[in-house]
Formats: sequence, C-alpha cells, structure tokens
Amino acid sequence: MSTIESGPLHHIGVVVPSLTEAIPFYRDTLGYTIGRQHFVADQRVRVVFATRGQSRVELLEPTDSSSGIARFLADRGRATMHHLCFEVDDLAAALERLVASGVELVDRAPRRGIDGLVAFLHPRASGGVLVELLQRSNA
Amino acid sequence: MSTIESGPLHHIGVVVPSLTEAIPFYRDTLGYTIGRQHFVADQRVRVVFATRGQSRVELLEPTDSSSGIARFLADRGRATMHHLCFEVDDLAAALERLVASGVELVDRAPRRGIDGLVAFLHPRASGGVLVELLQRSNA
Repeated sequence: MSTIESGPLHHIGVVVPSLTEAIPFYRDTLGYTIGRQHFVADQRVRVVFATRGQSRVELLEPTDSSSGIARFLADRGRATMHHLCFEVDDLAAALERLVASGVELVDRAPRRGIDGLVAFLHPRASGGVLVELLQRSNA
Repeated sequence: MSTIESGPLHHIGVVVPSLTEAIPFYRDTLGYTIGRQHFVADQRVRVVFATRGQSRVELLEPTDSSSGIARFLADRGRATMHHLCFEVDDLAAALERLVASGVELVDRAPRRGIDGLVAFLHPRASGGVLVELLQRSNA
C-alpha cells in the first residue's frame, strides 16, 4: 500500500522570465493551445497553461522580484522546470496520510489554486523535486 | 499552423543521484508503478519509469561522473527535473520542419531511445527547458 494513491500527472510547472517570450515555443513550435492568463496573487505570478488533451505545461512568470518563485528563477537565470503536479481525489485525506507517514509538507492544509485545491510537498520529501497535489474542482 | 503538431507529453525526465533512494517516493508515497531498469549506454545512465496510465516520470541515475547528465546533477546537487518529452508521429519529418524554421537542435537525426526514436531540441529553442521528441515504436 502506498501512502496516497496519486492520480495522473496534471501538469509540469515551468518558471519563465516572460510569458510573452515563452509562449511562442509551446504554441507555434509544438502546437499546444494557450489558455487564458491567470494572476495568482499569493504567489505573485502570472500563469498560462499550454495544453493538448490531458497534457499541460504551466508557465509561470513572477510579477515581482521578492517571491520564492522569483528567487528560484533568478538562481537559474532562464526558464526552468519548477514543480510536478499530481492529481488526488481527496487532498485533505492525502495530506493527513502524508503527515502520518512523516512526509514533509509545505502546505499542511489545502489551499485554493487555479483548478481546485492544491498543496505542495517539501522538495526534501522527493529528494529535491517540488511536488504539488491537486484536487480538481470538477473531480 | 505550428511547426510540428506535437502529441501528448510522454514523460518528464528527472535526474537523481540514486535510483534506489529516489524510487520509494514515487512507489511508496505516490503509488506509481516502477518499471524494469534500463541501461542507456550512450548517455551513461540507469533509467526506470514511474508510471500511472499515461503519466510517466523517468528517473535517470548517471553511472559515471563525466557525462552531461552527471554534470547537470553535480551542478544542482540533488534530484532535478531535466527534460520534457513530447510525442510526435513522425520524428524525421518533425526535425526537418524544425530545422527549416530555425529551431536549434541537439540531435539533427532520430536516434534509438528506450521507447522508440528520440531527438533532443537545444534548451535555447524553448528559452531554457530541454525538450525531447519521441516517435514511439508502437505508434
């Protein structure tokens, strides 16, 4: 038995210096569809999804230089993959099981994301990769 | 019209210091299935896929310290997302169109990968993210 029965990969988050400069590769080269732009106030990022069916790349552009995501970008100096997001059916239950198993979390309770409730695991939980869990609103 | 009509995201490649240490998170925490181990001689990596349906994380462990992937890992010092792999129907045709459009490539001709023919675009093509294209053997 695993700690949580994670669902499919929902998206890969990629931090970019500029959405305007990043979008043409996904749209014009790969042929992915660019969705509408979101502003995520608590993370201070502008976000668009590049999608094809169930495949999604989330492009995130920091809107100021002081956020964690802005510092991540400044460290790398160019577009860099930032997190993997996996779907779960019941995020609160998944977080409870993770805490009980000693898995280190960034968010100990679900919070509102673009597509539903989200929570981040600490990168230490996976040896270095930041993992987001998502309970979709329409799930 | 886009340059290529890329198919779904096939996998995300994650470089890890040790498969043995990386696998438990994907298997025991997320509940993903770990496939059999491959050795990719020309890249000098050991590889396993953690999968659930069409969602796949490719875990890559360098087998010596001199390869490009080993240097990538040494720069980061911990498990780090390395590339995105998108499926295409006809890789040779896709590469031709990319070259004609001035997209910078690492591989100008398809080469044999684990699941079919593969080629990498230069990270500059996408503003910093290494992108692999895959024509699946069974496609």
